[in-house]
Amino acid sequence: MMRANFHKQLDSLVDDLVRLTLTVEGSMIEATTALLDADAHLADRVIAGGPAASALRGAIDGRALDLAARQQPVAGDLRIVIAALRMTSDLERMEILSEHVAEVARRHAPNPVVPADLREIVQRMGSVAQRLTARTRQAITARDWRAADDFERADDEMDVLVESVHRRMLRDPWPHGTEAAIDMTLLGRYYERYADHAVSMAHHVAYLAGYELAGQPWR
Amino acid sequence: MMRANFHKQLDSLVDDLVRLTLTVEGSMIEATTALLDADAHLADRVIAGGPAASALRGAIDGRALDLAARQQPVAGDLRIVIAALRMTSDLERMEILSEHVAEVARRHAPNPVVPADLREIVQRMGSVAQRLTARTRQAITARDWRAADDFERADDEMDVLVESVHRRMLRDPWPHGTEAAIDMTLLGRYYERYADHAVSMAHHVAYLAGYELAGQPWR
Repeated sequence: MMRANFHKQLDSLVDDLVRLTLTVEGSMIEATTALLDADAHLADRVIAGGPAASALRGAIDGRALDLAARQQPVAGDLRIVIAALRMTSDLERMEILSEHVAEVARRHAPNPVVPADLREIVQRMGSVAQRLTARTRQAITARDWRAADDFERADDEMDVLVESVHRRMLRDPWPHGTEAAIDMTLLGRYYERYADHAVSMAHHVAYLAGYELAGQPWR
Repeated sequence: MMRANFHKQLDSLVDDLVRLTLTVEGSMIEATTALLDADAHLADRVIAGGPAASALRGAIDGRALDLAARQQPVAGDLRIVIAALRMTSDLERMEILSEHVAEVARRHAPNPVVPADLREIVQRMGSVAQRLTARTRQAITARDWRAADDFERADDEMDVLVESVHRRMLRDPWPHGTEAAIDMTLLGRYYERYADHAVSMAHHVAYLAGYELAGQPWR
């Protein structure tokens, strides 16, 4: 296979990565809305979107493997393909975590899960999640290998929000009961992990751009 | 590179995978003991083991990439290498989850985190985690591609245990306070995800053995 052809196919692969990222971004936005509005219908839609996202992920993985297997191996190309595979792996987890958020909303709808005094924090967790995913998407589109640099701060922002949910729960008295404590703990974990995967993706963008971040070991 | 040489290097890679699996298995055993015994010293040891496990993972990944890049590409070989990379990714998460368990123990030691009436369940979660990891390790060692088949049941067992922790927390009254509810929820999640990754590994064993499980899409 000619190198020009390889790069053309890689570009098309990256386009699909962007498409999958957009899907996952939409899932978390809708899941957060479903959670805050106690909207069972919207939660169902998020959950129903899982198989399509999973199929797109499978298609991208298959093409990435074909691409790597059919060309003359150049070490850098292989790393790029593997970076793409790791990004689809991150994206699949992000999609599943969005579905988990929707499932929590679904289980209680039409009753709200999030106590009134925690709504604002959850709203902000949703915003940070959305912003991280959008930034990743833009970085992939622009082959912006420095994307990871300003991601750590946004990730810290999520950790601070999750931590503040915990602190709020520990401030006596927590009047919302044990079930709400379990749900809020799980939700915090879902948003936190979602953000971690977005950051992980940003690190892989460097490989798509063919550049290794200084001091950032490849994983 | 000759095929015989490729397979020899692959064998050595798999030996290292077994070694890393053994490390991760040990981490979760010790983390569970630290948790149940409120043993800060043991918890510290688990946490201190992180960098060594991460370094071993990095070394395996590097060698897997070299192996893939330096040989004539055969599609099957590439899948095997990628399976190895996915297993190290699973193992790294399992190691981190063990450390999270140790961190919960550490934060409260010498006070116990697990209420007396939940000790037995946590003990069983630790046993299931250990059994799953040991089974995976044996499957890798034996190139046993059918390993995944009897893994789903063990994974279900973990889900049932985590679910029973939740049910216990929701049974009125939960006398241990909100902080214990948060900790038990997080611990349940850590063990659950650890088991998920062990099952994921078992699915990848099929590729190391050069065999695709019927109906089990490659991921």
